[in-house]
Amino acid sequence: MENNSVGLVKTQYVTFKDEFFFESGRVLNPITVAYETYGSLNEDKSNAILVCHALTGDHHAAGYNHPDDQKPGWWDNMIGPGKPLDTDKYFIISPNFLGSCFGTTGPASIDPATKEPYGLKFPVFTVKDMVKLQKRLIKYLGIEKLKTVIGGSMGGMQALEWAITFPEMVESVIPIATAGRITPMAVAFNTVARMSIMKDPNWNNGNYYGKTPPVDGLAIARMAGHITFLSDASFHKKFGRKYATLEGIYDFFGYFEVENYLRYNGYKFARNFDANSFLYIIKAMDIFDISYGYGSFEEAVGKIRCKTLFITFTSDFLFPNYQTEEIVDILSTLEREVTWENIESDYGHDAFLLEFDAQSDLIRNFLRNL
Amino acid sequence: MENNSVGLVKTQYVTFKDEFFFESGRVLNPITVAYETYGSLNEDKSNAILVCHALTGDHHAAGYNHPDDQKPGWWDNMIGPGKPLDTDKYFIISPNFLGSCFGTTGPASIDPATKEPYGLKFPVFTVKDMVKLQKRLIKYLGIEKLKTVIGGSMGGMQALEWAITFPEMVESVIPIATAGRITPMAVAFNTVARMSIMKDPNWNNGNYYGKTPPVDGLAIARMAGHITFLSDASFHKKFGRKYATLEGIYDFFGYFEVENYLRYNGYKFARNFDANSFLYIIKAMDIFDISYGYGSFEEAVGKIRCKTLFITFTSDFLFPNYQTEEIVDILSTLEREVTWENIESDYGHDAFLLEFDAQSDLIRNFLRNL
Repeated sequence: MENNSVGLVKTQYVTFKDEFFFESGRVLNPITVAYETYGSLNEDKSNAILVCHALTGDHHAAGYNHPDDQKPGWWDNMIGPGKPLDTDKYFIISPNFLGSCFGTTGPASIDPATKEPYGLKFPVFTVKDMVKLQKRLIKYLGIEKLKTVIGGSMGGMQALEWAITFPEMVESVIPIATAGRITPMAVAFNTVARMSIMKDPNWNNGNYYGKTPPVDGLAIARMAGHITFLSDASFHKKFGRKYATLEGIYDFFGYFEVENYLRYNGYKFARNFDANSFLYIIKAMDIFDISYGYGSFEEAVGKIRCKTLFITFTSDFLFPNYQTEEIVDILSTLEREVTWENIESDYGHDAFLLEFDAQSDLIRNFLRNL
Repeated sequence: MENNSVGLVKTQYVTFKDEFFFESGRVLNPITVAYETYGSLNEDKSNAILVCHALTGDHHAAGYNHPDDQKPGWWDNMIGPGKPLDTDKYFIISPNFLGSCFGTTGPASIDPATKEPYGLKFPVFTVKDMVKLQKRLIKYLGIEKLKTVIGGSMGGMQALEWAITFPEMVESVIPIATAGRITPMAVAFNTVARMSIMKDPNWNNGNYYGKTPPVDGLAIARMAGHITFLSDASFHKKFGRKYATLEGIYDFFGYFEVENYLRYNGYKFARNFDANSFLYIIKAMDIFDISYGYGSFEEAVGKIRCKTLFITFTSDFLFPNYQTEEIVDILSTLEREVTWENIESDYGHDAFLLEFDAQSDLIRNFLRNL
């Protein structure tokens, strides 16, 4: 364990017994939230930062859950003593979002009424629902205002949603590699993912708990998604046209290194993620649109009153830069305090997890000047 | 039927009894080729043009097979009296390529030895194999030299291969929206397609003839492919974020217009195409690399001696422009007669079938100046 690690961390759980109202009108209770915290809350409770994870991420963002863990949490290079999200200064809260499958209530959780997993009886949820549940957690921790809300991709959607829906509760937000609504092309990728899972006979209309889960369908869904995390340039750099075996170019079942990688990672993912949860989450991604409930996209963006730091990456084709530019333009016109950095990178959408140095100073300085 | 149509056309078939040697070393006979011709071969047999279709295309490029056909062949706006491929001047030959499923021998064809479809016993074939079979057809028609070979996408690969492998037989080639080898990102899309089909239980290791074919898997494969035919801009223009139904944004099974379109076209395709044939063809696409068998990519390109007209489209992300630029640069350095037009278009890869006006004059003038 390095010196600047948050060290051993225990995942915490809180169960809210009160009814939770979904944007759809559906109601559910109780709801449990899994979360981790790093650093200490100061006396006036003014140093809290909320970290929001992406599509298939979890609450374990930093440190180690067990002394023998090989890898730290997914954003360990960002969170720790002296790191950009400095645990000597800030109290970092990292929850697993609503509907995920790592401890927070979701489609794979047990419905107390039936003692069986919810499956497709789980309500369709939105990014706004995730944020409303996070608000419960924040209040439960005794916090009235967050120093910042930060996240990449779907994590960035949550950051945006916080600034729009609960403007009085955020001093700033840092949406990274994200958008106010995804492109129709991104919906198309989710279509392929959705169909792969739903057409896997083991999906069985969501009733696979206790039986064989739709591993093939979920693995293929992940492979399609994986394409969107990279870029044409990173595909070239990572794989080129290298064949996975020395021979076999004319072998019907032979394949390239890139296929080998996609298959391996697709199945690795599929063995550790709940297929229904995945379907619900990509649904939330598809229908996320900050303009819902407002007269226009501009009006929704206008609700953002706090300081904002937007970060994008030049080769990200899943969340193209023009989507952030549109928001930044609106905020600039409204004379809000907005900063936008479009980082030159070949890594595609994945850059938000890989371009550490470039983001590091931006975030550090932004927080210092709050 | 319009005035400048080639009118009623009958598909022709020729069966070659001689052994056909595949690039892999495998041997097969007999092999049948389905093809159509438009216009008349002149006396010195110097006016023949070969049209090569794309991935899932066929030999029916122009005119009507039946008087009650609602639509003409796929390149009818390009082929006919007075059209760029002018049937008053040229003799157009349009074959279904090796391994396809529209009349030319492929995996769904009956193996005379067993009286059953080849299925996975069919040899893996390459673009070079397709071209070698086309050469047999050309010779059979009594032609020694083609005025040009033209095609888009995988059709363009065939045009390129002709110029490299049989330089003495082509006066010119017109490769459109293509490359000398596909990108690893394109292979990744084919990976998703391949896995979707192979993991459909109905695929049954290729043994589905006479049973239920893997329609779901093939439909999903097509949906993944369809993403690559469009562009971010054309997705926006074609679909925006329009929902397919008036209500149902919180309906688990609700979906956007873009998903509706992909599903509809995916299944429409899957009901009319053989899944094994599709797998073999995307394999041929993956392993196509003009440098195979040569010391380098440059050396392979250097084999091209004829006049060339390359056409690309700015928003094509499946066959990025830099791939054609690379070939054009090599040819220019070698002082070959090369023309390249990069047409400004939002249509993505599909532009080769849609940007008719822009291509029309280019092709007409190129042929006039031969």
